Amino acid sequence: MTDSSFIAVDAMGGDKGLAVMLAGVARARHRFPDMRFLLVGDETAIREGLQSHPNLTANSEIVHAPEVVGSSEKAGVALRRAKKTSMGIAIDMVKQGRAGAAVSSGNTGALMAMAKLSLRMLPGIDRPALAAMLPTLGDNDVVVLDLGANTECDARNLIQFAVMGAAYARTNMDLASPRVALLNIGSEDQKGTDEIRDAAAALREATHLPLTFTGFIEGDRLSRGEVDVIVCDGFSGNIALKTAEGTARFVADLLKRAFRSSIRSKIGFLISKPATELLRHHLDPNIHNGAVFLGLNGIVVKSHGGATELGVATAIAAAAKMVRDDLTRRISEDLGNFEAKVA
Amino acid sequence: MTDSSFIAVDAMGGDKGLAVMLAGVARARHRFPDMRFLLVGDETAIREGLQSHPNLTANSEIVHAPEVVGSSEKAGVALRRAKKTSMGIAIDMVKQGRAGAAVSSGNTGALMAMAKLSLRMLPGIDRPALAAMLPTLGDNDVVVLDLGANTECDARNLIQFAVMGAAYARTNMDLASPRVALLNIGSEDQKGTDEIRDAAAALREATHLPLTFTGFIEGDRLSRGEVDVIVCDGFSGNIALKTAEGTARFVADLLKRAFRSSIRSKIGFLISKPATELLRHHLDPNIHNGAVFLGLNGIVVKSHGGATELGVATAIAAAAKMVRDDLTRRISEDLGNFEAKVA
Repeated sequence: MTDSSFIAVDAMGGDKGLAVMLAGVARARHRFPDMRFLLVGDETAIREGLQSHPNLTANSEIVHAPEVVGSSEKAGVALRRAKKTSMGIAIDMVKQGRAGAAVSSGNTGALMAMAKLSLRMLPGIDRPALAAMLPTLGDNDVVVLDLGANTECDARNLIQFAVMGAAYARTNMDLASPRVALLNIGSEDQKGTDEIRDAAAALREATHLPLTFTGFIEGDRLSRGEVDVIVCDGFSGNIALKTAEGTARFVADLLKRAFRSSIRSKIGFLISKPATELLRHHLDPNIHNGAVFLGLNGIVVKSHGGATELGVATAIAAAAKMVRDDLTRRISEDLGNFEAKVA
Repeated sequence: MTDSSFIAVDAMGGDKGLAVMLAGVARARHRFPDMRFLLVGDETAIREGLQSHPNLTANSEIVHAPEVVGSSEKAGVALRRAKKTSMGIAIDMVKQGRAGAAVSSGNTGALMAMAKLSLRMLPGIDRPALAAMLPTLGDNDVVVLDLGANTECDARNLIQFAVMGAAYARTNMDLASPRVALLNIGSEDQKGTDEIRDAAAALREATHLPLTFTGFIEGDRLSRGEVDVIVCDGFSGNIALKTAEGTARFVADLLKRAFRSSIRSKIGFLISKPATELLRHHLDPNIHNGAVFLGLNGIVVKSHGGATELGVATAIAAAAKMVRDDLTRRISEDLGNFEAKVA
C-alpha cells in the first residue's frame, strides 16, 4: 500500500540549492497542512536547513542520500549510482510505497532514466512522456506533451501520449472529454510527417475514448485556449516550450526597454504598474512549474532547475494534486479502455 | 542575361487580394525608384487596380496569367497548371532572365514546388530551404532556416543550410564570419537526433568556411542576438517560428487585457503609448516580412499570406536587396569552396 500522504523531495537537486528546496517545501506545507514529506539528501545539511523551518520538522522525515546527480551528468552515468543519489532514492520511496510522488529540480534526463528503470511503464505504454501545463488566453491552461523525454516518436507513441494527456486533463481540469490536437506545421490532412498523419488517422477513429480529437494545431495557436491537450514528439515539444518561454521573455525585455525610452514612458510605467505586474504574474514560470512524467507506475514531478521557492511549492502542490486525484490509476483505466477497443 | 532591374510580382497571391499587392509594390517603388516591376496576374484587374497608382504604371509591365493558385491547393495539383498561374509565371520570369527575383504572398508549398522545378537547385544543393530574418535583442536580426520547406532533413541537408544561411547573413548583414548554431533540445554534445549531432561534427571540422560554428542553441535563446544564423529542419523551424509569433501575440493580448483592467492602468497605458507603440513596431511581422528560398538558381521571396501593404513592400525591398547583393552568386561561391575542401 502506498502512503499517499507523503511526498518524497529530492532536496539536493536544482540550481538554487537546498535552502530554496526546503523553503519551497515549507511553503507547500502551508497549502496542504496534512501533507508530509520525505526530504532526501545529505542528512546533516538538511537537519541544519530545517532550523529555519521549525514547522516543517514535525511534518517531515529525513532520508539520507550520500550523493547528488550533477546538472549536466549523462543519464547513463547517473543511472549507475542511482541508489546512492538523492534523486534515485526519492524515486525509490515511490517504488517502495513510502511516498505517493517524488519531486526533483535536478537533471531531467537522469530523472527520466531513473524513473523509468525503477518504476517501470504502465501496461500498454512504451515510453513515458513529460507533460506540463502552459498558460493560455482561455479559461484553462493547456497540457502539452512530450516536452523532451523522447527525441523521436512513432505514431503509436503519439497515440499513447494523447490518451495519457487526456487522462491528465480530465483529472487536473475536471473535463469530461478534453479537446486533443497534434502539433503540426499546417492544419491540412496531408501536412507533417508519416508518424503524425498516422496518429491523426488512428485518433480520428478512436471515438470511444474520453477525448475529442480536433486535428492538427500549429505553433502560433498553442496559447489560444482552443484545445486542452497538445501532443507532439519530445523534440518539437521542447523546441516549442522553450521558444515560447524565450519569446515571452524577449517581449518583456523589449517592453522594459520601451518603458525606459523616455520620461513620459517611465511615468506611464509607474502608473500602469499593477497592469504590468498582472502580466508578470501570468507569465511567471514559477506559477506554472511542475512537469510530470506520464506513463509510469507512480508519480514523478520535474520542477524547473532554476525554480524559486514559489516554483518548488507549485511543483509540490501539483504532485500533491496528482496523488489526491489518483492520476496513475486514472491513466491506467483509460489505457485499458483504449487497448480493449483496439485489440 | 538576367534583367536585374525587374522584380516579378505574383499580383494575385495572398489573402488580402490584388489591391494590397499593388499598394505594396507602389510603396516599394518609393524606396527603390530605379526598380521596375512585372505585375503577373489577370490583366484587366491589374490595369484597373493600377488606376489608383499612376506613378507605378510607368515603372511596371503587366504579364497576363489566367489562373491563380488556391491558398490551400495541394502543391502537386498547382504544379500541373503552373504555367497558367500568376505564381508559376512570376517564377518563369526569373527563369527566362526577365526579372532578378519573384515575390509571392501565395501558398508556400506550391511556391516551393514550382520554384524548385522551374529554377532547379544550385550545384551541390539537394534541397532548398526557406529562410527568414527574425528580430532579436541584439544589434542584428537572426537568419533562421529551414522554416518549413523540408519536413525531415539529414545531416547533409543541415550542413548545406548552414553554408547557405551564412552566405545570406554575410550578404544581408555585412558580416565577415557569421555565428552559426544548430537548433537543439540541449547544449551538450550528446543531445538531439543523429542528424543534428552528425551535422555538428562536420561543421566543427569545417574551419575553412566563412562562418563561425558555435554549437547548439535552444529554443529559449532564439531572440537573444547571440548568433547570426540558426539552422534546423523545416518541421522544428516552422514550430519555432510560429510558436514565437503566437507567443508574442499572446503576451501582447495579455498586456492589452492588463491595461484594461482598471482606470489607473488605462491612464498609464495612454501615457506610455509611445513605449507600447515602439514594442508593436518591433514585433510587427510586416516589418520582418519576406522569407527567401535559398539554394535555387534564382531568387524567390515568400511574403506572408496575410501581409499588409507595408508587409508586401518589405518583402519586395528584401528581394531587391538580394538582387542588388547578387545573393545567388555569393551562395554558389561559398558552396563551391565548401565542396572543394571536403572533396
